[in-house]
Amino acid sequence: MTAPLLWAATLTLLIGLFYFYTAMRVGVLRGRHNIKAPATSGHPEFDRAYRVQLNTLEQMGIILPFLWVAAFYPVGPLWLAPLIGLIWLVGRIVYLRRYMADPERRQLGAAICGLTALAMFVVAGCGVLRAWLVTRV
Amino acid sequence: MTAPLLWAATLTLLIGLFYFYTAMRVGVLRGRHNIKAPATSGHPEFDRAYRVQLNTLEQMGIILPFLWVAAFYPVGPLWLAPLIGLIWLVGRIVYLRRYMADPERRQLGAAICGLTALAMFVVAGCGVLRAWLVTRV
Amino acid sequence: MTAPLLWAATLTLLIGLFYFYTAMRVGVLRGRHNIKAPATSGHPEFDRAYRVQLNTLEQMGIILPFLWVAAFYPVGPLWLAPLIGLIWLVGRIVYLRRYMADPERRQLGAAICGLTALAMFVVAGCGVLRAWLVTRV
Repeated sequence: MTAPLLWAATLTLLIGLFYFYTAMRVGVLRGRHNIKAPATSGHPEFDRAYRVQLNTLEQMGIILPFLWVAAFYPVGPLWLAPLIGLIWLVGRIVYLRRYMADPERRQLGAAICGLTALAMFVVAGCGVLRAWLVTRV
Repeated sequence: MTAPLLWAATLTLLIGLFYFYTAMRVGVLRGRHNIKAPATSGHPEFDRAYRVQLNTLEQMGIILPFLWVAAFYPVGPLWLAPLIGLIWLVGRIVYLRRYMADPERRQLGAAICGLTALAMFVVAGCGVLRAWLVTRV
Repeated sequence: MTAPLLWAATLTLLIGLFYFYTAMRVGVLRGRHNIKAPATSGHPEFDRAYRVQLNTLEQMGIILPFLWVAAFYPVGPLWLAPLIGLIWLVGRIVYLRRYMADPERRQLGAAICGLTALAMFVVAGCGVLRAWLVTRV
């Protein structure tokens, strides 16, 4: 029972650290391109960095809850949920790098994150379903 | 002790799935109306869909933490917190449908979500308060 | 083991309540300055309030996961993580007050939140690391 929670905690720290980095970059670019708050656009590089940060937050709102539900109600091989979460994080890094180069190239990273989010939903859903069946019987 | 957590997990999956759907629609409409990233506006239908997604994320930042605190520290009838969470989700669906038809009609859905969020805060707060009293004594 | 989780739950409720307040203000100012949805700008006071709300959500995406990981895997003095979380919340209040007066004065609050988020990451990271070492051996 411990390993799934510990993996979820580890991944949460890694994802949080990555997100912290995307937020820091926005602050740095805001200074470099002299974009005054509360504006959230004004220079292509800043605009991209801000969208990467916000999109990362948007996607964290999906993956983190699913990851923890999967950790609380593990099912199947215990490495499955952590592996999916790790691929999600790799997809985010791909997304960041490609988006900053050219927003039109964001599809690969976005696809990896979308598919892994769906996979995590299925894994977490199976765990919850099994827990309901066990609870009811 | 199990049922509140299992309910919270189930609701989290449903809410996450709904939010995933709002995010998917934004991607689809971005393609249909040919709105190039990193722009987040450019066509009324897209603008509405994006606001619905972001507002859903904004409200998830309130309800999910409260839901889980209420699940960790249950108090009163065990169906109360899950029921409030379910009404919140219904409010979100109402919000989505009305907002897409006409943003001025978003008030009903917004009110349901605001009131259920407050109700969840009260339930979670009572649970935490009781836990503090028990811990201290 | 109970106290860290109870503190995390208590802080989560306080942070959620503060965030709820920032979101409420945006709704009130939207009405007062007659800014029609789905617009998210149109009057300096509204623009500031909206950025404060969204920035609070952005920062919650960092601090809440770290806070809970630290609560699940406590290490060192048990008051450390709750204290860091409390200072983060104070930093948010400072951020709100200064940002509304003049966005250029947001740095102090932003710095408090950034540093406490990093401190929480270190505390949570130490707890997870220790748990891995104990699990492996």
